[in-house]
Amino acid sequence: MIDRLVIVGLGLIGGSLARALKERNAVGEVIGTGRREASLIRGQELGVIDRWTLDLGEAVKDADVVVIAAPTLAAEKVLESLKPHMRPDLIVTDVASVKGSLVTAAERIFGEVPAQFVPGHPIAGSEQSGVEASTGDLYVDHRVILTPLPTTRTDALETIRAMWQATGAEVVDMDVAEHDVVLAATSHLPHVLAYGLVDALAQSGSAQAIFRFAAGDFRDFTRIASGDPVMWHDIVRANRGAVLDSLDTFTEHLAEMRRAIESDDSEAILATFERAKAARDKHFLTQYQVKGKPQGATD
Amino acid sequence: MIDRLVIVGLGLIGGSLARALKERNAVGEVIGTGRREASLIRGQELGVIDRWTLDLGEAVKDADVVVIAAPTLAAEKVLESLKPHMRPDLIVTDVASVKGSLVTAAERIFGEVPAQFVPGHPIAGSEQSGVEASTGDLYVDHRVILTPLPTTRTDALETIRAMWQATGAEVVDMDVAEHDVVLAATSHLPHVLAYGLVDALAQSGSAQAIFRFAAGDFRDFTRIASGDPVMWHDIVRANRGAVLDSLDTFTEHLAEMRRAIESDDSEAILATFERAKAARDKHFLTQYQVKGKPQGATD
Repeated sequence: MIDRLVIVGLGLIGGSLARALKERNAVGEVIGTGRREASLIRGQELGVIDRWTLDLGEAVKDADVVVIAAPTLAAEKVLESLKPHMRPDLIVTDVASVKGSLVTAAERIFGEVPAQFVPGHPIAGSEQSGVEASTGDLYVDHRVILTPLPTTRTDALETIRAMWQATGAEVVDMDVAEHDVVLAATSHLPHVLAYGLVDALAQSGSAQAIFRFAAGDFRDFTRIASGDPVMWHDIVRANRGAVLDSLDTFTEHLAEMRRAIESDDSEAILATFERAKAARDKHFLTQYQVKGKPQGATD
Repeated sequence: MIDRLVIVGLGLIGGSLARALKERNAVGEVIGTGRREASLIRGQELGVIDRWTLDLGEAVKDADVVVIAAPTLAAEKVLESLKPHMRPDLIVTDVASVKGSLVTAAERIFGEVPAQFVPGHPIAGSEQSGVEASTGDLYVDHRVILTPLPTTRTDALETIRAMWQATGAEVVDMDVAEHDVVLAATSHLPHVLAYGLVDALAQSGSAQAIFRFAAGDFRDFTRIASGDPVMWHDIVRANRGAVLDSLDTFTEHLAEMRRAIESDDSEAILATFERAKAARDKHFLTQYQVKGKPQGATD
């Protein structure tokens, strides 16, 4: 039970966290803050937060936990604004998609990463955004990754773990670097590929015909290229090293496939396709069909 | 109105065509043939076909139209089997995903492409397959591409056009080569990329973690890597030239994106993402939301 929780940046992610904790009586008072006054007003109208202020210092005074519910680069700025208001008994966490860059930023801002800061990343989301789209069950059966450092205080880690568990999420601890490698492969690289493919086709001579005859497969494959370009640009920049590594691994693999196709190496083409299908079916059909519920992604 | 129609290979595509024509009284008798007796028996039980035979010659005797409803390489074999039974008044069409290779095969088999052969490709499909999954509205508001040659007989072309129009589809004529270029870009290349990405990740050291934390975005992006490996291997081989061209265009584009990410060229990254989002939103939000119905792909 958290007595007083502050959400900085009230959108889908922060709003859904507040709703989930309120519905499960896992929080006393929820205070909203951030730069978008309209979201805060709406959040209070909807009962997602109890009160709000545009003043971060006022918001965190007497608070127990602050959740920085802002995208990757914005989260760094919030950490800076939070610096004058930090207290040992104020536990801080975030939801940004890249952890290494934020940990580095925290080190730069505070001299060392504060022991009460628990970097986190809920792997959940929705096609929609904004506090209006928030729901109390967004995190049920979803995973939340926490990336504590060796210097992170245990009480801070356990408070944040309990907070996410109260929402129905499965909480997993992971190394900062491993988190960024895994997310580069499963989320950041696919976005680069989807944006890249759509842009390449849009610039080709047959763009009209290509989009006219594109069917469901293409639309699914490129759906993520409808994501917010600014946010994804921030993420790719923040996770540059891991994104480049996974891009290089993929490019090498693609070059091998090109050689197989060019030399009409039937066996090699089929072997690749079969391995891929088997891997995908194995991991996803067993993993997700049990829960019977599709999962979204934060960003 | 087609008096007697033969479907060679009774699955989702052929079965849905038969159902659509029957429901709209656009066909007299539908005869099923092919190698899978079980599908033919089931098709008759379901009322999709009126009768069936395993003997192709018997099936097409007295028929007006034959639809080769088989995948790319199988369609070539059906054309060969059909050779001894060809008559000037027997109109032939197909549904294969690659048109150039089949036209070349027809030329090889018959000496010249028969004037009553109309190559076709319905851009429709479903996650499911088999005659059980067939429905009479699969083609409603979907596109069917016909790729007639200059030597194709007009009466044959118009018969096949009218047949597909009767199912509720929009029929579009296209050049054989253009069809293959467009499908390479929108369907065949995305499959190569999805299979390639999943295979690359499955072989990486972090495979367990990668698939464990992959969220909805990744599942959508790689859904097509659950397609039938043999069928896609056939398609990629049959459309090798166009697939390699589109792969090379994409690879060049990706190399540019890599340079932008490596040199932290914020402007270039953002410009690519923004162009891609704009192109995708422009083409898909206007094109499909009017009809309000998602479209699938043949294969």
